[in-house]
Amino acid sequence: MRMFDLIMKKRNGGQLTQEELHDIISGYVEGTIPDYQMSALLMAIYYKGMSKEETVALTMEMAESGDMLDLSAIHGVKVDKHSTGGIGDKTTLIVGPMVASLGIPVAKMSGRGLGYTGGTIDKLESFEGFSTAMSVTDFVDHVNSMKFALTGQTGNLAPADKKIYALRDVTATVDSIPLIASSIMSKKIASGADVIILDVKIGSGAFMKDLDSARKLAKTMVDIGKDAGRKMAAVISDMDQPLGLAVGNALEVMEAMDVLKGKGPKDVRELCIILGMYMVNRAKPEISLEEAKKLLTQSLDDGTALEKFREFLAEQGGNPDTIDDYSLLPNAKLVQELKSEKEGYLVHMEADEIGASAMILGAGREKKEDIINPAAGIVLNKKINDYVHVGDTLAYLHGDSREKLSAAAERMLGAYEFADAKREGHQLVYEIVE
Amino acid sequence: MRMFDLIMKKRNGGQLTQEELHDIISGYVEGTIPDYQMSALLMAIYYKGMSKEETVALTMEMAESGDMLDLSAIHGVKVDKHSTGGIGDKTTLIVGPMVASLGIPVAKMSGRGLGYTGGTIDKLESFEGFSTAMSVTDFVDHVNSMKFALTGQTGNLAPADKKIYALRDVTATVDSIPLIASSIMSKKIASGADVIILDVKIGSGAFMKDLDSARKLAKTMVDIGKDAGRKMAAVISDMDQPLGLAVGNALEVMEAMDVLKGKGPKDVRELCIILGMYMVNRAKPEISLEEAKKLLTQSLDDGTALEKFREFLAEQGGNPDTIDDYSLLPNAKLVQELKSEKEGYLVHMEADEIGASAMILGAGREKKEDIINPAAGIVLNKKINDYVHVGDTLAYLHGDSREKLSAAAERMLGAYEFADAKREGHQLVYEIVE
Repeated sequence: MRMFDLIMKKRNGGQLTQEELHDIISGYVEGTIPDYQMSALLMAIYYKGMSKEETVALTMEMAESGDMLDLSAIHGVKVDKHSTGGIGDKTTLIVGPMVASLGIPVAKMSGRGLGYTGGTIDKLESFEGFSTAMSVTDFVDHVNSMKFALTGQTGNLAPADKKIYALRDVTATVDSIPLIASSIMSKKIASGADVIILDVKIGSGAFMKDLDSARKLAKTMVDIGKDAGRKMAAVISDMDQPLGLAVGNALEVMEAMDVLKGKGPKDVRELCIILGMYMVNRAKPEISLEEAKKLLTQSLDDGTALEKFREFLAEQGGNPDTIDDYSLLPNAKLVQELKSEKEGYLVHMEADEIGASAMILGAGREKKEDIINPAAGIVLNKKINDYVHVGDTLAYLHGDSREKLSAAAERMLGAYEFADAKREGHQLVYEIVE
Repeated sequence: MRMFDLIMKKRNGGQLTQEELHDIISGYVEGTIPDYQMSALLMAIYYKGMSKEETVALTMEMAESGDMLDLSAIHGVKVDKHSTGGIGDKTTLIVGPMVASLGIPVAKMSGRGLGYTGGTIDKLESFEGFSTAMSVTDFVDHVNSMKFALTGQTGNLAPADKKIYALRDVTATVDSIPLIASSIMSKKIASGADVIILDVKIGSGAFMKDLDSARKLAKTMVDIGKDAGRKMAAVISDMDQPLGLAVGNALEVMEAMDVLKGKGPKDVRELCIILGMYMVNRAKPEISLEEAKKLLTQSLDDGTALEKFREFLAEQGGNPDTIDDYSLLPNAKLVQELKSEKEGYLVHMEADEIGASAMILGAGREKKEDIINPAAGIVLNKKINDYVHVGDTLAYLHGDSREKLSAAAERMLGAYEFADAKREGHQLVYEIVE
């Protein structure tokens, strides 16, 4: 009867107390609360929302449902970053070495997950021999010696979130701001970093479609983190088109290395510098944002960030020679140009459709068992507000079969919209929430 | 994935098609749709409601999920009535014989169910030997020969409703008008009557607390029935206090017999005449409501309704002598007076609390396994707008133990409110919805 009363309370717009949320989370993890009651509650939360207090309490209950990682053996203020997910987002590969090259410890825990392309770990596994498998002790040692290490989820982090997320995924209760915020933050808090910098994406390729929702999600997560004693900031950045030009695992790795060499697409470089600024400033408040910007720009231009990446790659089993010879990375059997059939300013890209096309090519996983083709993906040749003539190359599709290439090409073409005038108001970073 | 899409559609305020509702209901009955998806959908329906078309389609899908009773072998237009449930509602025992005494076939299917007091079947089982167990053929024969028979739910009626109701009951999704309406009407339609007269209760002892909701529920059910080709009307009647004076199984049976003898509480008599008017007029439109009222009043005053009841009782195994000697019914070991501690006009009775007190005394079932004490219950001595002095008897409590009597007495006292002036606007019947 107790869970019934709590569903009723939330259904009628009431606020759940910390004790009630504790009973819900522990009961659900232990199996005394059945899925059908939990899904009814989640749907009520979808409609009625949660107050700041409720969201914080839910997050902490989920974080504490499993291991709370103790990273105190890492010297200094430990920094983590998290992106809410988007197409072509390779910032971790760049910003990790950048910030670490300034002597600030970046302890990054990443996932694989399902999606249009692999997670950061899948991307890094494009390097032959690269491994993220390590004990927590080794992880701590790596971060202490080199200031940057990347591992998969270690231990039993936030099992409540895992179980709840699986249920939300099949009951149409994913896109709720308090539920998204508590899911992300429960894992981040359990992961033990002192500074958490969030990259909240908005646009056609993101969960959040408008600035208002993105701002609300960012604020919610920042508040949760602060409440848990973490230093926080959130960057609201564009996902109305893929970040950079490359979408796919090895393709993104190459683009990331280009940026680390002081080259690469301007938007990737700029976003990495902005994320890095907050990572640095939050870890060392004596370094102002302006000064951090100068140092980070320098780290890209003078090769220190690249050197840090080389060190990191070698330490985790990858071949550092790959940095100077991209042919050591997997290369696709076939590359096909996607030609425009229309003319005008490119004003809209359905980023989700670009992602889906990359997935058709083999860059992502639909089911856990699916095997990623690391070479597959897309390299864009035109982005928003470029002028395109009929016959111009919009993108290059990388894949291993003609069928996949045609299917992806057809899907891609439907993702573009052209107009007579440039689109206004489109920008890379919309807001910083702190 | 399909059920996911349908949850999402409803969650976002969309309308489910008849085909989609068919897939949902058949999938849920067959077990291919799990409880956790169904409960998420039910919660979305709770918030987003259902259009008339959706509610009709849901009802028909639930009705057709099991047996559709064929009562065509009954001669004439078959009449059924249904009350949404309230404290002290013994109208079926009275209105059935009344209408049948005018030659109109009343084929009544009743339940036991959980609640403050037993269902109609439990009440009738206060008569030693009375039985409602019979085959559909016997039921048809009884109605043909005597115009009135009462049986339990025969066959596998609306199994989808049964399964869904059990889920609603534990997920706080009971009090949704389209869900209540489709649940009631799916069983009524599957039961096969041509005329269905509804008694929708409002007030402190009913699901519906205000006239607006009651009107909406009544209209929804009337529309569903008409759409299914049934003749319909709904009476919206008061449940801000128990109907009549008696609450409890044998106690209500005695009161019903009083009314059939042309005596008994005025409100019970009046409501039975009104329900009967619509039952008669819908079955035989050539009999006007006014004329039906005259005939029904006469049937109470000249004893023909009582004779019909006597016949019915004998036919289904009860002892007709009981009608003339109430001591043949179970009598409580103990009877205690409840004295008022306050003075003034009785302006409010929390009818649910009166019901709960009756349950404490043993009149109802909390769990399926609970055994009812047919003698237990309450006889009210004061009703709304009566003037009460300190020490006046408010009610008589019938039970079998001092503890139960004290517990019930304490609870009862909290249910009364007094004031200096009479309450205005309180009435027995608020509206007829047709």
